[in-house]
Amino acid sequence: MSLKLTILGCHSATPRTDAHPTSQFLEINGRFFLIDCGEGTQTQLRKYKVKFSRIKHVFISHLHGDHFFGLIGLISTFSLLNRQTELHIFAPKGAEEIIKLQLKHTKSWLHFPLYFHELTAKESELIFEDDKVEVHTIPLDHRVYTNGFLFKEKVGERKLDMNAIKKYAEIEICDYQNLKNGKDFNLNNGEIIPNSKLTLDPLKPLSYAFCSDTAYSEKIIPLIKNVDLLYHESTFLEDKLDLAKTTKHSTALQAGKIAKLAHVAQLLLGHYSSRYKDISFFKKEAKQAFDSVLLAKEGKIISIPN
Amino acid sequence: MSLKLTILGCHSATPRTDAHPTSQFLEINGRFFLIDCGEGTQTQLRKYKVKFSRIKHVFISHLHGDHFFGLIGLISTFSLLNRQTELHIFAPKGAEEIIKLQLKHTKSWLHFPLYFHELTAKESELIFEDDKVEVHTIPLDHRVYTNGFLFKEKVGERKLDMNAIKKYAEIEICDYQNLKNGKDFNLNNGEIIPNSKLTLDPLKPLSYAFCSDTAYSEKIIPLIKNVDLLYHESTFLEDKLDLAKTTKHSTALQAGKIAKLAHVAQLLLGHYSSRYKDISFFKKEAKQAFDSVLLAKEGKIISIPN
Repeated sequence: MSLKLTILGCHSATPRTDAHPTSQFLEINGRFFLIDCGEGTQTQLRKYKVKFSRIKHVFISHLHGDHFFGLIGLISTFSLLNRQTELHIFAPKGAEEIIKLQLKHTKSWLHFPLYFHELTAKESELIFEDDKVEVHTIPLDHRVYTNGFLFKEKVGERKLDMNAIKKYAEIEICDYQNLKNGKDFNLNNGEIIPNSKLTLDPLKPLSYAFCSDTAYSEKIIPLIKNVDLLYHESTFLEDKLDLAKTTKHSTALQAGKIAKLAHVAQLLLGHYSSRYKDISFFKKEAKQAFDSVLLAKEGKIISIPN
Repeated sequence: MSLKLTILGCHSATPRTDAHPTSQFLEINGRFFLIDCGEGTQTQLRKYKVKFSRIKHVFISHLHGDHFFGLIGLISTFSLLNRQTELHIFAPKGAEEIIKLQLKHTKSWLHFPLYFHELTAKESELIFEDDKVEVHTIPLDHRVYTNGFLFKEKVGERKLDMNAIKKYAEIEICDYQNLKNGKDFNLNNGEIIPNSKLTLDPLKPLSYAFCSDTAYSEKIIPLIKNVDLLYHESTFLEDKLDLAKTTKHSTALQAGKIAKLAHVAQLLLGHYSSRYKDISFFKKEAKQAFDSVLLAKEGKIISIPN
């Protein structure tokens, strides 16, 4: 169990050579997710050596260009590279229509199955689940319909306590999986050894909450409570609080307040407006409210072991 | 009168950090035109310091991603930068529907007039004209409906021959414009001085033909005859002639043949497949058929004075 986040782009609005729009690649518990896909994301994936074949699930927060305009190019490139593996897109209503219209006009026939999972709910919902991970939406407050995403490892197997197990000659290797699954052990003499005496608690599951773009909203706190890493947008500093309000974005201080109220382990800032040349001020401002602050930077990798 | 072409991207298919898809910025006779707009074009415009305000007319050859996917991002950025000036897009059917659908879903209301000029004709047509320049389509043979574009300076004013003029005291400065316009001069004694004795021929108008993407087609030769600069795609070398045929692209040798048959002054190659690491082979191959060959390279500027 582990979490590794690669920042592909972390600026807002208009792309520049050294400031790419939002995209992140998440590895969590052996699963891989692309989160948002601004223009140029496919180039950033190559630059930071993320294998295209690992991308099977793409989560799009909303349809503003700096989070979405790179998706058609990525899909087209997958097609040109003769991809066969299915691709799942979780995105607001409209994404499917936009992508399919462009594929029609380019006369592109994909050789891989492309599935759209349209997001429309106003309350948090479970949108992806397998044996390792689950993903929930985090409804956000922005100018268009927008979701953040909560990625959670599932609780793993219990760990064998070999010092305890070796006291019982009757317990053989073939019994280990049952123990890992939480079962008690029945000795031949009828005695029952409770599982808790033979195993240790599994590792605490890791969780990552991605919240971009959004106005300051305490409504999200119950959803992101205690996450190991919270990405919360900070388009502005407090000097532009009025602009943050009218554009439904957040300041770094507001992101810090949310992190504190939600008792998260670490806060990651990003989606910086290009008006700020020195992003270190974002960290300083957020730290007024919350201590453990990281700054998203293009190419940065944040690893959280368990 | 002059021609200056900036190469923003010159590779085919999938963008990479060091290989951007097709886009060119043309200055001709004081007019400015953006030609094709692959993903990342807005970033390239910034990188090569082309002022956004100069772009009022965009010509899209076809709707394949490497020529078109950057347009929505460019339009969105214009909108974010609060552009007021009108923008004209000359593009195949479908472009308007795709762009407007995306603007609808991003809830973007442009503050500038956006005009689409839908190209559908199978024969060459005049699609833009003002007092300085005209632009004609060059129908190409590709997998989807595709046009190249022929940019032609208009014939300028005649030049005053001051040595001849000063012989006639009656000719005053206020007469000069009539002479430039080609009018004869009537002396008070009734004698008529033919314009050809008072002025020199205007500079030869420059012309640029942009041809991408296309299979080898001699049909375009009458349209591009004698141009000062011909950009002709060369996706492949002759080693991939079969692939060029099936994908309806050209080889460098074929581009050279077209240049020779059309008696152009210079040939510019581009749209290289990323399979070729050393593009110098394109020049070598084209030179087997035609002598004056240039290689498009990102950031390269080709200036033709008159």
